[in-house]
Amino acid sequence: MAKKQSKLKIIPLGGLGEIGKNMTVFEYENDIIVVDCGLCFPSEDMLGIDHVIPDMTYLEENYSRIRGFVITHGHEDHIGALPYALRKFNVPIYGTRFTLALVEHKLEEARIKNAPLRCVMPGDSIELGCFRIEFIKVGHSIAGAVALAITTPLGVVIHTGDFKVDYTPIDNEPIDINRFAYYGSRGVLALLMDSTNAELAGTTPSEVEIGKTFEKVFDEETGRVIVASFSSNVYRIQQIADIAIRHGRKICLQGRSMIYITRIARELGYLNIPDDCVVSLEKLSHIPDDEICVLTTGSQGESMSGLFRMANSNHKLNIGRGDTVIISASAIPGNEKAVSKVINQLFMRGCNVVYDPLADVHVSGHARRDELKLMFRLIKPKFFIPIHGEARHLYHHAQLAEQMGVDASHVFVLNAGDVLDLTRRGGKVVGRVPAGEVLVDGAGIGDVGSTVLGDRKRLSQDGMFAIVIAIKRSSGELAAEPLVVSRGFVYEKDFEGVLEDAKAVAVAQALRFAECGRHEWNSIKNDMARGIDNCLYKKTKRAPLIMPLIVEVD
Amino acid sequence: MAKKQSKLKIIPLGGLGEIGKNMTVFEYENDIIVVDCGLCFPSEDMLGIDHVIPDMTYLEENYSRIRGFVITHGHEDHIGALPYALRKFNVPIYGTRFTLALVEHKLEEARIKNAPLRCVMPGDSIELGCFRIEFIKVGHSIAGAVALAITTPLGVVIHTGDFKVDYTPIDNEPIDINRFAYYGSRGVLALLMDSTNAELAGTTPSEVEIGKTFEKVFDEETGRVIVASFSSNVYRIQQIADIAIRHGRKICLQGRSMIYITRIARELGYLNIPDDCVVSLEKLSHIPDDEICVLTTGSQGESMSGLFRMANSNHKLNIGRGDTVIISASAIPGNEKAVSKVINQLFMRGCNVVYDPLADVHVSGHARRDELKLMFRLIKPKFFIPIHGEARHLYHHAQLAEQMGVDASHVFVLNAGDVLDLTRRGGKVVGRVPAGEVLVDGAGIGDVGSTVLGDRKRLSQDGMFAIVIAIKRSSGELAAEPLVVSRGFVYEKDFEGVLEDAKAVAVAQALRFAECGRHEWNSIKNDMARGIDNCLYKKTKRAPLIMPLIVEVD
Repeated sequence: MAKKQSKLKIIPLGGLGEIGKNMTVFEYENDIIVVDCGLCFPSEDMLGIDHVIPDMTYLEENYSRIRGFVITHGHEDHIGALPYALRKFNVPIYGTRFTLALVEHKLEEARIKNAPLRCVMPGDSIELGCFRIEFIKVGHSIAGAVALAITTPLGVVIHTGDFKVDYTPIDNEPIDINRFAYYGSRGVLALLMDSTNAELAGTTPSEVEIGKTFEKVFDEETGRVIVASFSSNVYRIQQIADIAIRHGRKICLQGRSMIYITRIARELGYLNIPDDCVVSLEKLSHIPDDEICVLTTGSQGESMSGLFRMANSNHKLNIGRGDTVIISASAIPGNEKAVSKVINQLFMRGCNVVYDPLADVHVSGHARRDELKLMFRLIKPKFFIPIHGEARHLYHHAQLAEQMGVDASHVFVLNAGDVLDLTRRGGKVVGRVPAGEVLVDGAGIGDVGSTVLGDRKRLSQDGMFAIVIAIKRSSGELAAEPLVVSRGFVYEKDFEGVLEDAKAVAVAQALRFAECGRHEWNSIKNDMARGIDNCLYKKTKRAPLIMPLIVEVD
Repeated sequence: MAKKQSKLKIIPLGGLGEIGKNMTVFEYENDIIVVDCGLCFPSEDMLGIDHVIPDMTYLEENYSRIRGFVITHGHEDHIGALPYALRKFNVPIYGTRFTLALVEHKLEEARIKNAPLRCVMPGDSIELGCFRIEFIKVGHSIAGAVALAITTPLGVVIHTGDFKVDYTPIDNEPIDINRFAYYGSRGVLALLMDSTNAELAGTTPSEVEIGKTFEKVFDEETGRVIVASFSSNVYRIQQIADIAIRHGRKICLQGRSMIYITRIARELGYLNIPDDCVVSLEKLSHIPDDEICVLTTGSQGESMSGLFRMANSNHKLNIGRGDTVIISASAIPGNEKAVSKVINQLFMRGCNVVYDPLADVHVSGHARRDELKLMFRLIKPKFFIPIHGEARHLYHHAQLAEQMGVDASHVFVLNAGDVLDLTRRGGKVVGRVPAGEVLVDGAGIGDVGSTVLGDRKRLSQDGMFAIVIAIKRSSGELAAEPLVVSRGFVYEKDFEGVLEDAKAVAVAQALRFAECGRHEWNSIKNDMARGIDNCLYKKTKRAPLIMPLIVEVD
């Protein structure tokens, strides 16, 4: 009797139904590999939260079977949760040189030492348990990005990571479409593909396209040129630096991550800027304006970034009339207002401001529909799983897959935590593992839940109102004048009358402590809170968090 | 000797450097008129604030000279602050019929009665002191929008309000460009023009353009069609209703403001939907899906709106597979994530979702650069003041004015509060009046300032930690075990140790009350707060607001 065929399990722990915290588990019999380990930034309702990481409970329960983490590239939504994972799992982490350099930096900041990092090159293959994984060069908005061809006992699974098809990349090493064709010709079991731009028709322009805009600015402007961009977009920085240098300008690097990442990238050979073309901030005053190009962080309007501080007169570089500022990025959803605010401030300072989409100063790092179609045609997958996107992106991507000939029953729009069982003949979601948002707040990982967030929400809206009542333990009589304190509620000096009224309500209730039995004290406290709440709402139409604090003295 | 020529003062109190709370004062000798009186919505850092209105101090100080308020149209950013103004000023308010119907509704909600509302028609002129004001029909995303030609003793000033140039509007009453031409030919002193779309090249498409998309959806879809749009965009609603009815569908209106505003608009003749084409929610179950079109609120993802509740299974209309949802609006800056969330939820329910910019289901109500150019050519103003826009929009608009031949020294990019003195020969900012953001929070107008907002911010991030220490007034000895309470800080059950540690720090300080003189008690309290802060931060990396509450008992 033939041995019963085992199943390949694919379990996304994040990155589906959201842009961010990408993490996917592949499992066959006794072997597990994990692709990516990212974080995402908190939504507006997660007050005070620093960031959000995937729930790794399933991996903790199956620690002994994890053969390794495989990282597609070094963006935060792919590596950001590694410090948390590495505190739990001592397993090797595979990635290209630039990816691992960024991982190393993260681990240093988290004081994690001796992590088992394993460097690979595009074209390399590694074996992890029953899986063989080949790293395939792709284009993206960061150096060192790869897709994965994962050969499993059931067939090949392609995971694109984040990618675009750029035939003319800055580093002259285009996406290795021949390799995708190779696998496609031999037969691919399943494709997991980046959905970020699956709503958008056409193709994402090549990185070189925006060079024309920069050429024009450097040709025309005679003042200083300040460019804000993502520090990890080494290609963008290379292109801008090349054009600036060709126009006789020197490069001044500003912003913590810009300085750090360009240093790594230059050391590793990903970025080529001659030493004599780089100039420090201190030297800028000795150089004519038309020989200066400043590269800085802050393209998202982040409040501690270089550009933000320049726009707010909180930076040694005093920019204004005559200077041109180029924001070489588009606003990530949620950052629109912050970016717009910086643009406004720069205009108010008198700067000439150049930004997307009014000028061609940015291209996306993600494939649009025509590029996705190319991949479908090359890879010809039997099964398709859209990844890396919100529901709207996954849905459009699934629809595209069907247009490209993938059988509708072979397309799986999954949720984080779904366990997809795949055989050569079909697939099925057979269960769920814990998956969701683990909130990181300061030193706490996962301890902040709905109660704490609910309190923060309420405190943020109308503040709090505390009243301290000291009563004698024996008799329940008042032992002191009640003490009233509020924060974030009203400007107390203007509202003394209201606070006094609330105090009177509290005292009226507090007198009952002496009259009632001890078993009623809790209900008196509740009545007091309710009474104060009513009193304050009536006068202010605000509902602060009410805290009656009863202290019993001897 | 000739009498010295008086000056025309133009004083924007809002709507410059921002999209929102539009309000402009025109003043000549003893006469003041006020154009619009809007509110805006709070920015993210204004925690708990309901909305923001202009500072009207200058008007209060010059109450006796105000001849009237003139309203260009009924959007919130033009009428929203009227309830506040009318509590202070009993002056007539002029506007078209639809505008005043919306104002009346606002005043009813604010329980303001017998306001002196004066209805005008496009083409009418009124006299207010030395000013003659003609109302000129313009296109916009609301019915009843007008521009103003204000004849002053120094010449004519044109205030466009918000507008677009739509040659083929739904109501067949296009913008009265001939009237602008008339004034332009006779000579216009100054132009104040809508800058909202001044960054964008070309022209804003006509409202009829999006009809094609709706025709296609109604031709193809056999399920229910649900359309979310702004309730005040009567033209949009008319167009969709017409197409739906032509396709044999009945109209079901959902969402509080959609029901209310369509009722007014139908009563006043701005909206024509035959009674037998309107159907109530209760009757929907008796009608085939392909005969149903639901018009609802919620195009901005607002949490209490019709569409939001449908998307979240919190509405009697249970939508899902087979239904098509059209979001006929674009996200207002700041609402992007909320809108995207609703789109995702609709996809997850299985709906077909049609939205901007993937489909042509929305056009703006504001003129783009080519329309602005037309107005410059028609009106040929001597002086130009860009209004209604953030700095980026005003700057681009000013630049355009110069391209259109307005002398650079005749273009004034103003800030709210600037007093622009205009003569026939030139203009100059001669001073400032109080202008800024008056925050409305519940019943409080302007009482919430930076202290309260700062506390709310801190409370929202890490919550609060209170410790109640009861000491004997005479000796300073502890009268009871300290009481520790936190909210929004940590989940207390998981952090009992940390809370105990903080308590120990407090007790150690509290023992000093008995040892030190009363004059040192305050500094002890400060030391206590600092000690607790350090202790909590060390253990949790969070910084809650620390409140040591010392109550003295006898």
